[in-house]
Parts: sequence; structure tokens; C-alpha cells
Amino acid sequence: MNAPTPSELLLPDFRDVLAAAARIAPHAHTTPVLRSRSIDALAGCELYFKAEHLQRIGAFKFRGACNAVWSLSDTEAARGVVTHSSGNHGAALALAARTRGIACHVVVPEGAVAAKLAAIDAYGATLHYSAAGIDAREAECAQVQSDTGAELVHPYTDARVIAGQGTAALELLAATPALDALIAPVGGGGLASGTAIASAAVSPSTRLYVAEPSGAAETHASLQAGKRITAFVPDTICDGLRGTLGAPNFALLQRYAVEALVVDDADTAAAMRLFLQRAKQVLEPSAAVALAAVFANRSRFSGQKVGVILSGGNVDPNALATLLAH
Amino acid sequence: MNAPTPSELLLPDFRDVLAAAARIAPHAHTTPVLRSRSIDALAGCELYFKAEHLQRIGAFKFRGACNAVWSLSDTEAARGVVTHSSGNHGAALALAARTRGIACHVVVPEGAVAAKLAAIDAYGATLHYSAAGIDAREAECAQVQSDTGAELVHPYTDARVIAGQGTAALELLAATPALDALIAPVGGGGLASGTAIASAAVSPSTRLYVAEPSGAAETHASLQAGKRITAFVPDTICDGLRGTLGAPNFALLQRYAVEALVVDDADTAAAMRLFLQRAKQVLEPSAAVALAAVFANRSRFSGQKVGVILSGGNVDPNALATLLAH
Repeated sequence: MNAPTPSELLLPDFRDVLAAAARIAPHAHTTPVLRSRSIDALAGCELYFKAEHLQRIGAFKFRGACNAVWSLSDTEAARGVVTHSSGNHGAALALAARTRGIACHVVVPEGAVAAKLAAIDAYGATLHYSAAGIDAREAECAQVQSDTGAELVHPYTDARVIAGQGTAALELLAATPALDALIAPVGGGGLASGTAIASAAVSPSTRLYVAEPSGAAETHASLQAGKRITAFVPDTICDGLRGTLGAPNFALLQRYAVEALVVDDADTAAAMRLFLQRAKQVLEPSAAVALAAVFANRSRFSGQKVGVILSGGNVDPNALATLLAH
Repeated sequence: MNAPTPSELLLPDFRDVLAAAARIAPHAHTTPVLRSRSIDALAGCELYFKAEHLQRIGAFKFRGACNAVWSLSDTEAARGVVTHSSGNHGAALALAARTRGIACHVVVPEGAVAAKLAAIDAYGATLHYSAAGIDAREAECAQVQSDTGAELVHPYTDARVIAGQGTAALELLAATPALDALIAPVGGGGLASGTAIASAAVSPSTRLYVAEPSGAAETHASLQAGKRITAFVPDTICDGLRGTLGAPNFALLQRYAVEALVVDDADTAAAMRLFLQRAKQVLEPSAAVALAAVFANRSRFSGQKVGVILSGGNVDPNALATLLAH
């Protein structure tokens, strides 16, 4: 990763989350909070599930992208937006740009999954192919910026994105009784840090956790070490959590004393299967990891009211079939 | 099938559906009506999905069972209830009986799926094993009745069950704009006939359809022939729709001029996959058949407002994996 740019270190705060909530309200869904008696009984606590798999594009990512797009001045917006992501953020930014009627450029690596590219394309974005590797992607992104004047919207270090992601927790905390604990998945840390900002302001007594796969547990390592660790090779079924924790994201997780819970992929797959059977909902592994963290730490949450941010449900049916078969 | 008993031919009417709604309100969920922009765009119509896969026990069956249980006098209730079903109705009656604190006996065939029996057992019902075949099951059922005085609650011919199932359509029609059409799956016909009663009363201009798999299309054949056809060997992935259309159910479908749409299993599997991808919801094949009927009859529903009763979401993860892989 490159060193953080100054704009990345302008950390967003709760006022930014509130402003984001107002800004995205006409475009994003207020997703439901789901409850399950049978899962509560199995977990030994009261679980309040924020159903971001039911958000537009099937993931929370639409919140941050939408906030970024609608934060632009008309002059900035006229030049469009650009990002590099072959995943949910690419689709989210494409749809967000469409809600404002502006251009969107998405840099994707050669060999990215065709179905994901088709989704981004279907939302009207222009695809730009780069070689694999973060350097090639960032170079292509810079080229697009230079050619078009488009505004870069980074998937998780952008302050507007972080503030937007915080609106999910804001809605959850407004719709539930006082929560003892709140858990969000962590990859790059956009959702995790936005959640921390919102929760600390609205419900300071709620303990904050992030869940991450043991095959990409650099947030846990970073919080333990007191400095951001970026050298690791991800190995996990949680395809949305393979990215590296961002610098502003790490700073926010430290500021709000967030604790990281590390989860094995087998437990995440079991949580996906359980949620599918009991709640009839499809989660992607990167979302199920947060539920798995509850089961992996039963005594910690015993009898408590626990919020769980289910971050998304975008999983290819064939991949799901493989995860379900055992 | 035996000849219908006189009580089966006391057909329920709309007052019974209204009474059922009041009776089950403290126990059953008012399930949400789901919408999907992307599925609407693909189907070319506005679809209003009644999410009975989110009902207690994961299927609409809880409505009818609950109405039957709470229709009993205290004296009757004290003797318990009995049925024969290894599927959703067995689980539904078991849970309904538990809401009233009374005994429930469920006759199941030797060799029934262990997971389903475990679910019935978990709700506190007593399992009674019979040889396979309807005659053996009915004989065992009669024996339990004779031994215990328990009230028989047939899965779909019982008038209380039919009225209870009609409450799903009642809720749907109360929560949506005027629907041009309404589609429910049909197996034994409890849901289909209850839906017809409710819809005809609340929204007489709504056209009524039932969807059934081509491998068990005796409702279509019966309506065409003008008499109930019961001789067929079911061959379909829709495990909830393999039963034979009941006599009172047939009479009600005739009375309300319901039209049957026949769907191939491949289309049903594709509808399951689509709903999973776009709506992140797990449907059992017996529910997805109703969505598949829309896609198989696109021109008929073009531009219309169409209600679809998604009857349940109880599918074994391994079976789902097989259906998703292709």
C-alpha cells in the first residue's frame, strides 16, 4: 500500500455520518433488522441482524459510494467518478453514479470474474482493464483521472465512504433496544470504522467488535501491535475481506477501542449454512463471519443484546453450492 | 384417497378466513411483502412477494395449523391433535400445539428424512411411525385418535386449515395496491383454496392462478376435466406439491374459477436460483414454482401488478447445493 494521502487522514466524525444519512436517504434502502428466535436460542443471546444483504447492489457498499457521489459539487460531478474494484464497491459506485446521472469508471484486473463485471457494466459504468496487482490498478486509475478529471472514490479509505458506511449502524441503533455489543466484519475497514464512529456517538456503552477471518487477520495483528501491519497473504473464503486495512480505518478502530475477533473459515461456512436454514437468507462469507464470531465467543455474549451487521449477500450460486455441500 | 367426509365438504368461506386471522394473530408472523426492482425488470411486471418462507416454521403451514388448534374448545384441546405428515404440516401442527400447551401426535412413515423428524420432535410432538403408503398412515392415525381422543387435523382438506392458509393472501391484499393477478402454488390445495376465498372477497377483480409442477399437474388436469383426477405418480423436485388435490380444495378452485399454470422443474430451479441471487432469499422448490409460472407466462402478466405467494423456504442445504450447481 502507498502511504496515506493527507485527505485520507482527515478522519470523518459523527457529523459526517449524520450528513451522509440525509444525503443517501432518497437513494438507499433503510434495510430491515431481522430477528430469529431459533438462532437466538442456539447462540444464547439476543441477536439483532442489520440486513445489508438487502441493500441495493446486495451490500452495504452502496451507502458509502452513494454518499461520495452526492457529496460532489455539480462541477466535480460532471467529470464523473473512478475507482478500482471488481467487487461490491465497483457495482456500488456504478449504481450511485447512475442515481446522479454522471459517468463512472471502474478499473478492473484482467481475469476478474465475468459475472461481477457484467453487473458493473449493467449499471452503466465504463470498465477499464489493468494488469493484476495493486500498482498496475492504481496506475490505470491515475491515468483515467488524468484523462477525464474524474474524482477518485477509494473503496474504504475515502472519508465520504467511511461516513456513508456508518449509516448502517446508525439505522440499527435507532431501531433496537440498547445493545451490549455490536459486531461488523472488517476487511479494508470502511464499514468497521464507520460503524465505530456511529456507535460511539449514539450508544457509547455498546462494546465494539470487528470480525475477521483467520486467513486475513491483519486487523487483529495491527491492533495488538499498535501499528498497521500490511504484509500478509490472504487465504480465506471471505472474498470481500482480503484487502488490507486502510490507514484512516486503523486510526479510527484504535480511537474507538475496537476489539478484533478472529474466525476460522469453517465456522464462517457453518454460520452461512445456519442462517440459510433458519433465516432463509443468503449471506456472503464476508458477512457470515460476523455471526460466526458470536458462536465462536458464546460466553462473551451470553445473555446479551448483540447487533450484527450482515454486510452483504453477493455469492455466486455455484460457489454457494460448494460451500453448502459437505 | 378415500371419499371426502361430510366435514370436509363443509366448505369454509370468507368469514372463516377473517376469524382465522384474528385467532392466529397472537402467534403467527405478519410476513413482509418483498419487492425487487431487478426481478421486476426481468419479468416485465410488478411483483409483490408474500414472504411465507419467513413465517414461523419456515412455511405458510403454520397459519392453518394454528387456526385449527385455536379453534378447538378447551375440552377438545385437552385431548390433543394428530396428523400424518413428515413435512411442513407436521412441524406446523407441533408448534401450533405448543403455543396452546397441548399434546400433538404426528404419524410419519418409516424412513422419513431424519432432519424433518428432528424438527417435529424439537417442537415437542410425539412421533408415531407407520409403514409407507397412505393406507398405513391413515390406519395409524386412526389408532392414535382412538387411543387418545386427539382431534385429526388434515394437512389440506380440513376447513379450519384452509381458512387459516387464506390469511396470507388477506395480508398481502391489504398491503399492496390492487393486484391484477395472484398466484399461489398448489399441491393438496390448502393454500390455493384459502387464497381463492380471501382474494375473491377482498379483490374480486384480481385473477386467480395456481402454479404446479408438470410432474404433478393433477390440478390442471382436474380443472380441465371438470372432475378431480387423483390417479398420477408425482415426479417433481417440488416435494411439497406431490400430494393429491383434496376434494374440498378442488370444489373451491372450481367455484372461484382459478386457472392452473403448469411449470417444468428446470424453470422452477432457475427461479430459485434467480431469487437467491437477486433477493438473497432461500425458497423451497414448491414456492419457487409460483415465480417460475410468471416467467413461463410473461406475455400474460406483462405490465401487471402480480402477487406471488412464496409458500416456504425449507430446503436441506445439501439438496439446495445440488439444485444450485449446474
